[in-house]
Amino acid sequence: MRVSELVERSGVPLPTVKYYLREGLLMPGTATSATRAEYGDAHVRRLVLIKALAGLGITIPRIKAILALIDDPGDELFEALGAAIAALPPYADVADVDGDFPRARAVIDQLGWMYDPGYAAVGQLERALAAAESVGMPMTSKQAKAYGRHVMGIAEAEVAGMSTDSPRAAIEYAVIGTAIYEPVIAALRRLAHQTRAARLLDTTPKPT
Amino acid sequence: MRVSELVERSGVPLPTVKYYLREGLLMPGTATSATRAEYGDAHVRRLVLIKALAGLGITIPRIKAILALIDDPGDELFEALGAAIAALPPYADVADVDGDFPRARAVIDQLGWMYDPGYAAVGQLERALAAAESVGMPMTSKQAKAYGRHVMGIAEAEVAGMSTDSPRAAIEYAVIGTAIYEPVIAALRRLAHQTRAARLLDTTPKPT
Repeated sequence: MRVSELVERSGVPLPTVKYYLREGLLMPGTATSATRAEYGDAHVRRLVLIKALAGLGITIPRIKAILALIDDPGDELFEALGAAIAALPPYADVADVDGDFPRARAVIDQLGWMYDPGYAAVGQLERALAAAESVGMPMTSKQAKAYGRHVMGIAEAEVAGMSTDSPRAAIEYAVIGTAIYEPVIAALRRLAHQTRAARLLDTTPKPT
Repeated sequence: MRVSELVERSGVPLPTVKYYLREGLLMPGTATSATRAEYGDAHVRRLVLIKALAGLGITIPRIKAILALIDDPGDELFEALGAAIAALPPYADVADVDGDFPRARAVIDQLGWMYDPGYAAVGQLERALAAAESVGMPMTSKQAKAYGRHVMGIAEAEVAGMSTDSPRAAIEYAVIGTAIYEPVIAALRRLAHQTRAARLLDTTPKPT
């Protein structure tokens, strides 16, 4: 297809497409003349992916890092998945976090999950738990048990949908699924709170 | 206590305490002389709350709105809860969202939850679902069922911990719990993915 169709199908404006080409985020098309090139479905797919990542506020260098892992995951898919997810926000400010992640480690141990201090989500959990503690709402082990059970239920359903045939597809799925479904889950949680609170407040005396 | 102790116990620096006093976010202490005032535990608690909300990037006017609802929730706790939660990020850009929230409504109907288009989380869900659709990962009804079940499990545990005796305490709990535990759940989900993916990739042939 021509670049005009690429623009139309991806929803990415022409100047942005040119910028991504210059920056090496989008692979060049096949030149058909000095000023024309042909593009394919892989270009549309790549543009949609870049657009989604940019829409999450991820910087161009980090998008480049994610795309490099998709294009060349290396021999260890599991390592490549971890590196790609680490390029997503939030970015833990290491200075904020206790070096050995005591709160995160305790929770992960309690749940019997994998503990890998090199994985960015461990620092994220440590920071989030420290914040909860600082406002007087530390996570109890009863809470950790409930969260662990339900979050693992979500993760099981999500990971089951990941194809492991193609490392490229697996990383794309993991990166997009992680980032795009985070706000879905957050919004659903607020709606579930509303539904529960409505039931709770209907069955208890109204406060005055 | 003196203001110096208030600074120490809340962890909020003196210039910031003075700023919150001037802006009316922190209630004044009891004057004991022309230049001195006494503060109590309620001031420490209020400062910790303001600090937590400011740390989430919430602007001073929005913090003021939340505090006003905590101080005077009115007769309808349920309404006050909704208004307080609506002051938390993310702020839906109404222009982005289809007016009648078709995607969100379909999911809420499927789950049998409360549908209230005036509640900010409905617009948030609509926007999040539209984003998932735009990258070719629309939420299926099977997925909605799994998410709904597990997210409601989380919400049940959380709402059960909310005291409805005092509207003030209920709103504080809801605002802080919603905002502070969102990153906890997001980090736990990434860790659960890692644990599941490790199991999955151990039991299937390594991709080459």
